[in-house]
Amino acid sequence: MNQQIYADHAATTRLCSAALEAMQPYLTLEYGNTSQPYSFVRRAKKALREARETIASCIGALPEEIVFTSGGTESDNWAIKGSAFNDPEHRTTITSMIEHHAVLRSCEFIEKLGFPVVYLKPSAEGIITADSLESVITEQTRMVSIMMANNEIGTIQPIKGLAEIAHRHDVVFHTDAVQAVGHVPINVKDLGVDLLSASAHKFNGPKGVGFLYIRKGVNLPQFMSGGAQERGKRAGTENVASIVGMATALKVNCDSIENNRKRLDELSNHLLNCLKEQGIPFVRNGINHLPGNLSLSFKGQSGEALLHRLDLMGISVSTGSACDSVNTQISHVLKAIDLDEDLAKGTIRISLSPDNTMEEMEYIADSLKRIIIPQGE
Amino acid sequence: MNQQIYADHAATTRLCSAALEAMQPYLTLEYGNTSQPYSFVRRAKKALREARETIASCIGALPEEIVFTSGGTESDNWAIKGSAFNDPEHRTTITSMIEHHAVLRSCEFIEKLGFPVVYLKPSAEGIITADSLESVITEQTRMVSIMMANNEIGTIQPIKGLAEIAHRHDVVFHTDAVQAVGHVPINVKDLGVDLLSASAHKFNGPKGVGFLYIRKGVNLPQFMSGGAQERGKRAGTENVASIVGMATALKVNCDSIENNRKRLDELSNHLLNCLKEQGIPFVRNGINHLPGNLSLSFKGQSGEALLHRLDLMGISVSTGSACDSVNTQISHVLKAIDLDEDLAKGTIRISLSPDNTMEEMEYIADSLKRIIIPQGE
Repeated sequence: MNQQIYADHAATTRLCSAALEAMQPYLTLEYGNTSQPYSFVRRAKKALREARETIASCIGALPEEIVFTSGGTESDNWAIKGSAFNDPEHRTTITSMIEHHAVLRSCEFIEKLGFPVVYLKPSAEGIITADSLESVITEQTRMVSIMMANNEIGTIQPIKGLAEIAHRHDVVFHTDAVQAVGHVPINVKDLGVDLLSASAHKFNGPKGVGFLYIRKGVNLPQFMSGGAQERGKRAGTENVASIVGMATALKVNCDSIENNRKRLDELSNHLLNCLKEQGIPFVRNGINHLPGNLSLSFKGQSGEALLHRLDLMGISVSTGSACDSVNTQISHVLKAIDLDEDLAKGTIRISLSPDNTMEEMEYIADSLKRIIIPQGE
Repeated sequence: MNQQIYADHAATTRLCSAALEAMQPYLTLEYGNTSQPYSFVRRAKKALREARETIASCIGALPEEIVFTSGGTESDNWAIKGSAFNDPEHRTTITSMIEHHAVLRSCEFIEKLGFPVVYLKPSAEGIITADSLESVITEQTRMVSIMMANNEIGTIQPIKGLAEIAHRHDVVFHTDAVQAVGHVPINVKDLGVDLLSASAHKFNGPKGVGFLYIRKGVNLPQFMSGGAQERGKRAGTENVASIVGMATALKVNCDSIENNRKRLDELSNHLLNCLKEQGIPFVRNGINHLPGNLSLSFKGQSGEALLHRLDLMGISVSTGSACDSVNTQISHVLKAIDLDEDLAKGTIRISLSPDNTMEEMEYIADSLKRIIIPQGE
């Protein structure tokens, strides 16, 4: 009972030891400002260059297409708002109803400034279909922004097909890939995306750093105005330590992406089987899931109560997005997929890492049984 | 000759050991997402709360008036752009010609969107006078933004008086205090500012983190849209480790602010005396300087060449702002104070820390003599 089981890896992950080690020189001796032209910053500049190359190679991009940001929220804000500020014609942005709030709130922001936004409704499985995009895209569309994988129900979207539709209409395609980068294989050229957001702390990198992939040729004005850093694209003194940590973590994750997927599938299947064996009725939301992401709905239960009861048993899970945890209403994602209100209210998200164990899956299932079927069978 | 003398502390500073130590738990075991409601993040949440209290107490603010950002650039962008986005009347922003580029470029950005900006010219000493502000402020002014201390010439501005003028006209007053926080005593209530920008890496905190002081009652819309973090004011997963490091570094600096000033004055005076003794003619720019900040102009010299020759001798100094180092033209600050072109071209900035030594001052003066008067006297 004194054990601590962390099963909320979609909210954040632990900084991997290789990343922390790689960061050390830049947290100590190599503290120079890499915008300066003197030899003291030679090693820090080299580290920055190598980090950019590493990240680019992990997603099939060119190094000059990677711009460092303060995280996924900034990357999303930049893509959505930056694109609007560049558009005197006030053309339309198409996004979906199940995006992360960093996209949705940015869209609301530009709407207030007079830029129209269309919100696509997903299928009951949480998929944004090609048909739904085809039906609304016009010559008056400026940008399509569809997330690669949903943070609540884990559904991976058919990004390649959606990007193709956008490009047939000469429309820029952005994807919020914060949940996907480091967890599923990504090649930006193969996917055909123009802009891609990522956040380091979702793939065992440090918090407060991320990147935006900007395809060569795409013109996105500065969101962070100021100094000439990042070849004039993003101002602010480079956070070398965190950038190096991010690159190291991404490389470690990408190098074992297939093994991790196998391990996560085993863990997920074991958890699902244990729940079934315990006789606990549940629904798993979404399809085509991110490895290790399980959105489970228990009829007649309260997700919030489940979270707190599990917490007392040493298990950390989520009711939905971490960024929306102050809000106890039904999440916008579960609403959008038209999940039964009774199921939606009883939903928790369990998100695993390869470091979780089979025993932990059994303990989670056992704990859920004790909460949901308190007097035994 | 193998020594390395770092004399560019206005560009960035070394992370202090107390800050690095304080960060460790949040870079390792305490990695939870502080937006989540479970007990695993209790310690991280407490650390975040205490960091906010520490920072608030260092500048005389209330904890709820401190909002964490990714650094000075974001804080400045937020103040300038956020204030504009909130103003359907498109009223005027008043700033100065010697602001950091994070302010100047943000002002150019809002100008393009149709918000007028007036740029005040400083005196020859680099001061923005009350008279100059009085002469342009009107009922059509929305915001005044004047930096607390200039990053190139170190001049500390008469902020209290300028803020009073703004408030007499019901205008919000912002100060970019990135160079000043942790280096000169600051009490926001005494100064009467409404918004104040700071950056951790300028006061021995980590890079990639800063804060914006937002006086209670001032309505500034989100710049970073998304999750409900920072009481809905700034979205993005909290970078707990860096925030804790920032608070620790600020406390350490503020606790020894008077001793540091004395030490920096001693070092500065020693350097100036050594230069005079060596018979090197120079002009020191600005008045009312930040401790340890020396902008020195050498007639007939090239600042860039001086920087590189000093670099070869193991000394790191700057020609001007680090953020503008790709630009070899005369800095906008030296132009604004109408410095003789011949002097402006031969300008370097030496910025010291209390850890520099008297011997280093002698070595810097000696090295400058060897460069400027190569054949001896």
